[in-house]
Amino acid sequence: MSSEEGTVFVGRKPAINYVMAVTLQINRGVKKVVLKARGRAISRAVDVAEIARLKYFPGKIKVSDIRTGTEEIISPDGTRRDISVIEIELSQE
Amino acid sequence: MSSEEGTVFVGRKPAINYVMAVTLQINRGVKKVVLKARGRAISRAVDVAEIARLKYFPGKIKVSDIRTGTEEIISPDGTRRDISVIEIELSQE
Repeated sequence: MSSEEGTVFVGRKPAINYVMAVTLQINRGVKKVVLKARGRAISRAVDVAEIARLKYFPGKIKVSDIRTGTEEIISPDGTRRDISVIEIELSQE
Repeated sequence: MSSEEGTVFVGRKPAINYVMAVTLQINRGVKKVVLKARGRAISRAVDVAEIARLKYFPGKIKVSDIRTGTEEIISPDGTRRDISVIEIELSQE
């Protein structure tokens, strides 16, 4: 089974865990994988994209789009704060 | 005095410091400011771009391009390691 687009949410685990998730999707035939991260995990999402692109799929996938934005988080105590988000789109070349 | 393009290197200081650097350049007439960051500071660079865009220059500047890449760092002891980098281009609308 394959589909056109997959998503990997990048959080606090080591980057390699998310690289494996990307690898799994690409190897299943997914043409476009979108990495999504918030806050401090943004740096890790860039690491995941770079490791996947350079070490696991050299010449096979590229960063086709990067979007950033802001989301509002509401804590359990009701306070609101803004957090930065990123979406990095990896596509098969 | 004004020039077409400015650069702000985002490091370990609080995001607001770099927002101030961007503000200074925009207010001097710089048309395009490029935020550059490496490693963990990447998340902060996205914060700086979002704060500048939404709070300091709403409707006046936009993220016109985002580029990511990998650089090799050579430590004083000679070991090499790769580090992710980002460049976020802010332009006056």
